Amino acid sequence: MGESDPRQPVDTLITAAHVLTMNANFDEYAPGAVVVQGDTILDVGAEATMLEAYLPRNRLDCGNAVIMPGLVNTHGHAPMVLLRGLADDLRLDVWLMGYIMPVEAEFVTPHFCWLGTQLAAAEMIRSGTTTFTDMYYYEEAVADAAVQAGMRAVCAQSVLKFPTPDAGSYEEALIGARDYITRWKDHPLVVPAVAPHAPYTVTPEVLEGAVELTLEFGVPLHIHIAETAHEVEEHRERYGMPAVPWLKKLGVFEGKATAAHCVHLDEGEMRTLLHHNVGVAHNPSSNMKLSSGIAPVSRMLEIGLNVGIGTDGAASNNDLDMIEEMRLTSFLGKVATMDPTALPARKVIEMATIMGARALHLDTITGSLEPGKRADLISLSLDEVHHTPVFARDPDSIYSRLLYASHQEDVLDVMVNGVWLMRDRRLLTVDPTPLRAEADRLARRIDQFLIQREESVLSKLVAIGGVAQVRSFEVQVKIKDVDLETLEARLLTLPEIHFLRGSERSQYDTYFLFDDQWGSRLRYREDEVRDLESGEIVDLIYRLTLMNTGKEKEFENSILLSRSRFDAPATRSLRFYQEYFKPDRVVAVQKSRRRFHIRYGNTDFALNFDRIGSTTIGGRATGFAEDHPFLEIKSRTWSQQDAERKAGLISDMLILLQLSEGSLVKVEYLDVVQGSSENR
Amino acid sequence: MGESDPRQPVDTLITAAHVLTMNANFDEYAPGAVVVQGDTILDVGAEATMLEAYLPRNRLDCGNAVIMPGLVNTHGHAPMVLLRGLADDLRLDVWLMGYIMPVEAEFVTPHFCWLGTQLAAAEMIRSGTTTFTDMYYYEEAVADAAVQAGMRAVCAQSVLKFPTPDAGSYEEALIGARDYITRWKDHPLVVPAVAPHAPYTVTPEVLEGAVELTLEFGVPLHIHIAETAHEVEEHRERYGMPAVPWLKKLGVFEGKATAAHCVHLDEGEMRTLLHHNVGVAHNPSSNMKLSSGIAPVSRMLEIGLNVGIGTDGAASNNDLDMIEEMRLTSFLGKVATMDPTALPARKVIEMATIMGARALHLDTITGSLEPGKRADLISLSLDEVHHTPVFARDPDSIYSRLLYASHQEDVLDVMVNGVWLMRDRRLLTVDPTPLRAEADRLARRIDQFLIQREESVLSKLVAIGGVAQVRSFEVQVKIKDVDLETLEARLLTLPEIHFLRGSERSQYDTYFLFDDQWGSRLRYREDEVRDLESGEIVDLIYRLTLMNTGKEKEFENSILLSRSRFDAPATRSLRFYQEYFKPDRVVAVQKSRRRFHIRYGNTDFALNFDRIGSTTIGGRATGFAEDHPFLEIKSRTWSQQDAERKAGLISDMLILLQLSEGSLVKVEYLDVVQGSSENR
Repeated sequence: MGESDPRQPVDTLITAAHVLTMNANFDEYAPGAVVVQGDTILDVGAEATMLEAYLPRNRLDCGNAVIMPGLVNTHGHAPMVLLRGLADDLRLDVWLMGYIMPVEAEFVTPHFCWLGTQLAAAEMIRSGTTTFTDMYYYEEAVADAAVQAGMRAVCAQSVLKFPTPDAGSYEEALIGARDYITRWKDHPLVVPAVAPHAPYTVTPEVLEGAVELTLEFGVPLHIHIAETAHEVEEHRERYGMPAVPWLKKLGVFEGKATAAHCVHLDEGEMRTLLHHNVGVAHNPSSNMKLSSGIAPVSRMLEIGLNVGIGTDGAASNNDLDMIEEMRLTSFLGKVATMDPTALPARKVIEMATIMGARALHLDTITGSLEPGKRADLISLSLDEVHHTPVFARDPDSIYSRLLYASHQEDVLDVMVNGVWLMRDRRLLTVDPTPLRAEADRLARRIDQFLIQREESVLSKLVAIGGVAQVRSFEVQVKIKDVDLETLEARLLTLPEIHFLRGSERSQYDTYFLFDDQWGSRLRYREDEVRDLESGEIVDLIYRLTLMNTGKEKEFENSILLSRSRFDAPATRSLRFYQEYFKPDRVVAVQKSRRRFHIRYGNTDFALNFDRIGSTTIGGRATGFAEDHPFLEIKSRTWSQQDAERKAGLISDMLILLQLSEGSLVKVEYLDVVQGSSENR
Repeated sequence: MGESDPRQPVDTLITAAHVLTMNANFDEYAPGAVVVQGDTILDVGAEATMLEAYLPRNRLDCGNAVIMPGLVNTHGHAPMVLLRGLADDLRLDVWLMGYIMPVEAEFVTPHFCWLGTQLAAAEMIRSGTTTFTDMYYYEEAVADAAVQAGMRAVCAQSVLKFPTPDAGSYEEALIGARDYITRWKDHPLVVPAVAPHAPYTVTPEVLEGAVELTLEFGVPLHIHIAETAHEVEEHRERYGMPAVPWLKKLGVFEGKATAAHCVHLDEGEMRTLLHHNVGVAHNPSSNMKLSSGIAPVSRMLEIGLNVGIGTDGAASNNDLDMIEEMRLTSFLGKVATMDPTALPARKVIEMATIMGARALHLDTITGSLEPGKRADLISLSLDEVHHTPVFARDPDSIYSRLLYASHQEDVLDVMVNGVWLMRDRRLLTVDPTPLRAEADRLARRIDQFLIQREESVLSKLVAIGGVAQVRSFEVQVKIKDVDLETLEARLLTLPEIHFLRGSERSQYDTYFLFDDQWGSRLRYREDEVRDLESGEIVDLIYRLTLMNTGKEKEFENSILLSRSRFDAPATRSLRFYQEYFKPDRVVAVQKSRRRFHIRYGNTDFALNFDRIGSTTIGGRATGFAEDHPFLEIKSRTWSQQDAERKAGLISDMLILLQLSEGSLVKVEYLDVVQGSSENR
């Protein structure tokens, strides 16, 4: 050898038993080498050729391993690692509205987002991800944390129609997003983006604002589309069309868009996404765990869509392991189509690398090992028991080994933008130990918050919003087994009783009973209000009412009930509330009610002609199956004195109605029904 | 402290932040301890209580970890780790009959089974399995390997109706099984068992023999049931009932039975299994990867069946990671029922431990941490980034962390029967390094075997069986665009031509064309043979014929074709063959044929009145879409001389039939069609 080495000096040369380029030809080198200069891949090729051509300052031999492009996580909510395991095995709405959103409203701050993203980065690096996508709040903190960890990231600032942890209104959110994008738009690692959250959480105004940003700055737009069948149905009902054409009309696909989930799309919607080069982020773990459904991935690939793979947030997954997501993509795609040749190994590895980069509109920068691209790469050990044996006959067998038998622990080394983030499983840019301690401290605060909130039924009710406290007294009595028809006819002929107005109702009450110190009773009422004459439904009311048991005072012919109660509109389903409140017992009381508002003795009363129908206790029908007729007389009051006067008027009225000898009942229907059940 | 320590001396005391007993009350201790004496659990409880009561000779503190029962793998084929990654992304039949079975027939020996089981044991121990179930050949070698690795195992000797690597007949297999069971039936680790493979691979005699063994020795019986919809359909067709009642009738459930897969069961079948206390082994990875379908696990649990979890063999999974199988059990169960509350964390951990032990009829010995049971336990680290943070509010959150966020690398320590098999991820009973080297050498031999087999189309054809070589010559000619009706009418009036017999056929030929040195052509023919008069189908023939291109000799009005060809019955589908043979091109030729066997000049000829119909090349329809009428005249011969004579007779016949001026075609229909396509 002469003094002047003919080889070109380079920063780093990395060799391994296999190099998978994931370029257009799927070129493989075994053994192979990757040459890195600065932040860029200078060359890729057979080991011998590369060693002959280049003189590296740093040399790494990964041995019996694969060097391949780093994995591209196309959808997630990094800071939500801090909510991992907070609440599992629940319905999406219970999980989201009962736990995640109240906790987010209380705890999400810029530091929360930074801390969560740092931990997420540690987990993602350890499982071979080099690029991730984020959609959350305080996105600048997410971006900061990603840069500190050295990861490439698309950080999309969420914009929603309602207030969020980081914005009091959507106008404020859009101003914040613009500000953030302006400052980050030329960053070497972070691609700032805007994320109108989902069709059902935005308005056309929100979308227009987001589109303006994406077009003005050329930054990507990230959005959830068609995650659940329910949301798709609601969208159709509301707008008369599915989400994709609606979004298209509003210009959402004019820029560089990526749509997460896409579980429930029709063929036309897929074609629209294709036409606009919208990337798709498939999230198998999340879609399975939350029972969202199975995305038509094979079909999307068939028509030519770029489908990447994502982990979604750790609160719904519950890890950020792209290797597991790859395997699930294949497994789920095979069983869903009943075709074991669907989503074969090489195709899925492609989805997790270069196709994922295309879905994020980042394929000129990352996703494959090609000269000129950024040096984003990982090495994965094949030197493991679970990689034994090695078959070489089928050229795709290396992909098969990676997809079907690899675990995250096989990832040895990770480089992003020419910088090592992990070497031999040792993290170099993030130290998780202090971060974990802080996350655990935060978790204890969140635990406390939820424990306090769940301590009483009332605080759980308050937590989901819309509650108003109603403080009043009510004098009431019921008379059982009344001939309602005869009574109603007589009522209207009595000159002492002045008819004000009336209605007919079907009331479906479900009582959640709690063995707590207050004997809490939460009533979920569906109230179908009909016009007394025409019988047409004039109103549908869904309300939650929290009451405690106990009478204030008993009179001769009536009782006084204190009604310190809490009312809230019931905007979610009975099933939601039952799972959320977890009552000790459930009793259903169904009644048809003809209600007469009358005046008697210059005092307003409600006379309810009720038929109490079939009921269930704890899901089983009770003996109270046939209709029982009751007359109920009620009047509101705000003082004991007034109550006594009204109790006297009720006694008079019972005589007038010839009911003074009747079978008086001084309890609520719920107790009537429970008593009936207990007597069986 | 006095001289006599009041504490009871014991062998081992193990502590950790969490101890999950998986007993009937799901008792947990945090922190907790397990006390081991010999091969048995002496006590389990709160750490402080145990430390006060016992004086251990060996003390292990696992720290921030969970101690729990070892995982119970209820179904698998351990030696098949040696075939992992051999052939993926294929249909079940192609995979099984095209690759796995030929390789097994060639390579499976007792040593193969021992080697594979040793490697499987290493992999299973590393992922927290303490008990596994095996169903394979040379089961004694499997049992030997399990004992050497220190694992608990149900080792079920396969019995099939056809010859297997370890038995020339089922009688021989049953004798071998009896012999094996007799020798192993009282082993402390291995439970010998008998495995009639599946309803479709056994006969009633095989089952009776297996039932005799299970009843005589009280050993378990292991069987595949209802893995695929196809097998279920075939069973119904053949026996007029589903598999479960058929097996029940034959006494299969009289002993301690475990049924693997159970993907396609009806409600009645589930109830029958319940009635007979048959355990079920659910294999989510395998069922997804092979597209077998989704087992109704939620329903099975609802009616009370004991459903365990299994990995199946590594050739169809492709790993033996029970932690992944647990997570998939939950994920798949949720998405299949569209109910995110289905298969919650604690239930699935139960399935993988005590319920799995019940499914194997081993629950008095293992599956939970209870005094008196064998000491089969593992510790799993919670001290990982992916286990951050820790929420403690929900008592089931420890199960949720285990199920939804754990990876096999979290398993730190494994003990079976009171003996450590792994400590701090270091294997103590198996050294995989020399085993892996041997497995890789074997893989290279298997590669060579398959490469040679796949080198020629003929050897692939031979490999799947039933091939017969046919050596003959054929003189033939075709005349294009003939008025077939007129010709047929004339033919029957000619005194020179003696009609022998006739038939009408619809022939659907698919040619697989190969660019190999022989220009191989493999024809898959579906031949519907109809009676010439009635038009009724009298026969259906499916045949594969391998031919080479090339004419032997050309005559004036005909050609001589050498027909050194290979015939085999085609018992599988066109799709199977296409995937198996991977032709370079595919051409379909469809024809309706009226065939007349006639005698002319004291010589037998076949006159085919053919209409060549729509054809496709490479899956696309060609221009040859309309029917083209041809007359084909053929005669077989075994010598050149005879061929010349017959060529002369053909010329005479053409004059007689007034076709001598016709448009002669001296190639096969395949070439006619290809020529037509090329001319487009």
